[in-house]
Amino acid sequence: MSAPRMAALPRFLVNGLPGDRVSVTDRGLAYGDGLFETIRVEQGRAGLLEQHLRRLALGASALALPVDLAQLRNELEAAAAELQRGLLKLTITRGPAGRGYAIPAQVEPTRILQLSSLPDYPSANAAEGVRLFPCATRLGHQPLLAGIKHLNRLEQVLARSEWQDPSYAEGLLLDIHDRPIECTMSNLFLRLDERWVTPSLTLCGVRGVMRDYLMDRLAAEGEPVIERPVSSDELLMSAEVFCCNSVYGVWPVVELAGHRWSIGVHTRQAQRLAEQVIS
Amino acid sequence: MSAPRMAALPRFLVNGLPGDRVSVTDRGLAYGDGLFETIRVEQGRAGLLEQHLRRLALGASALALPVDLAQLRNELEAAAAELQRGLLKLTITRGPAGRGYAIPAQVEPTRILQLSSLPDYPSANAAEGVRLFPCATRLGHQPLLAGIKHLNRLEQVLARSEWQDPSYAEGLLLDIHDRPIECTMSNLFLRLDERWVTPSLTLCGVRGVMRDYLMDRLAAEGEPVIERPVSSDELLMSAEVFCCNSVYGVWPVVELAGHRWSIGVHTRQAQRLAEQVIS
Repeated sequence: MSAPRMAALPRFLVNGLPGDRVSVTDRGLAYGDGLFETIRVEQGRAGLLEQHLRRLALGASALALPVDLAQLRNELEAAAAELQRGLLKLTITRGPAGRGYAIPAQVEPTRILQLSSLPDYPSANAAEGVRLFPCATRLGHQPLLAGIKHLNRLEQVLARSEWQDPSYAEGLLLDIHDRPIECTMSNLFLRLDERWVTPSLTLCGVRGVMRDYLMDRLAAEGEPVIERPVSSDELLMSAEVFCCNSVYGVWPVVELAGHRWSIGVHTRQAQRLAEQVIS
Repeated sequence: MSAPRMAALPRFLVNGLPGDRVSVTDRGLAYGDGLFETIRVEQGRAGLLEQHLRRLALGASALALPVDLAQLRNELEAAAAELQRGLLKLTITRGPAGRGYAIPAQVEPTRILQLSSLPDYPSANAAEGVRLFPCATRLGHQPLLAGIKHLNRLEQVLARSEWQDPSYAEGLLLDIHDRPIECTMSNLFLRLDERWVTPSLTLCGVRGVMRDYLMDRLAAEGEPVIERPVSSDELLMSAEVFCCNSVYGVWPVVELAGHRWSIGVHTRQAQRLAEQVIS
């Protein structure tokens, strides 16, 4: 059976139909009033789909955004089957509306699905580790929005614009109290006193689905992960450090502002767990 | 000379051409990566245009967003002449781009102009004053974005969704340290010890153009406005309180959570100054 010829990537679906335009009155554009998920697809399957849908549901609840999870699941599974290998980006907004912050009585969310190829990260990132750029941009505290992958992402845009040097694969973000929280597109794990610690995300930061998955899997392997506030000193004192997301898995961190780490066995263990769901 | 028949409102221009759609890849939609201004038009003129353009330039500088202010001024003046009376909303984003937070090497901003009629606020708001809803949503601190009218407005969306009762014309927003900052779409002025005080906006809040204008004009009339952090107790102790923006001018505040204020002569003075530029 020959595979059907596919249209070029990226391609887009808006509300289930081919199309790449939305109304200028969409509240996603006006206020960043919406959510998104970026999902890795391998062998026609959307990786960590349950975790992505669970985070989407949490965000939708926080924003009081009506979403049809069964419909989204069907569309994501169909798009993953079509894509076979690549990236699915789902954006869901509160849809078109009149001017003003008040949520309209009748909300018709807009859902946008982007099918694209996988980013071409150097394979050395996973094998030999990455350097982190120390971002000056600080994450503000907003407990109502912390953890959620919403469309208000100017902090990440500002932080990511701080470096162009490709020898930095990621940038470290501290919060306004100078505590390490995450990287611009990843979460952070630290090996402290023979245990994994990950910064708590109750005041800022995005709760990555790979972070959730690794916390579950590491606990099941006898390595429970402690979620708590972390200081910069603790980060530097850590025996191992890695960053992770659901697209690239785990990258060991080997350098930050002149400080160096070697790649330990515990990071390699986390990497193997991640590879089980992203390949 | 008879006026030409105008198309129904609202109508839209995208990059100078009639149209009401933008690409789903626009960074305004993806990350709220952009700015906006809402401008009142009377007698074919855009009110406080210099102040609006100045704030836009400040925001563009903070976001490193390339904007052509001369072009924007021309388009706003032409649209105001066409509209004669109503509201112009200008949105400017970092334009379409590939996936990821990094700013592309070549940025082509998207500019969207919305021409609409004036909102139909009750005339009693200005004449008899308004009640403020005490919002539970707190403004997070982010000095890099404070003051700017950017497209990351989920805090305002959440705050405005807290009440539906139309007897509240506006909602009061405190910051995460419980200090009064502004209202959901307006700034705040308090009469304390025979002087006007307005909350400083270095950590959060939007620097309204009417606030800037009133600070200038009141100073010129021998009433300099002090810009500093304000406590909730000070708000309640104030002799007069008003909120203001460039669309409705000045609304005296007469009630908040059971506390009542009367409308004083100093508020009426500010109201007259505002009316000089919005009517």
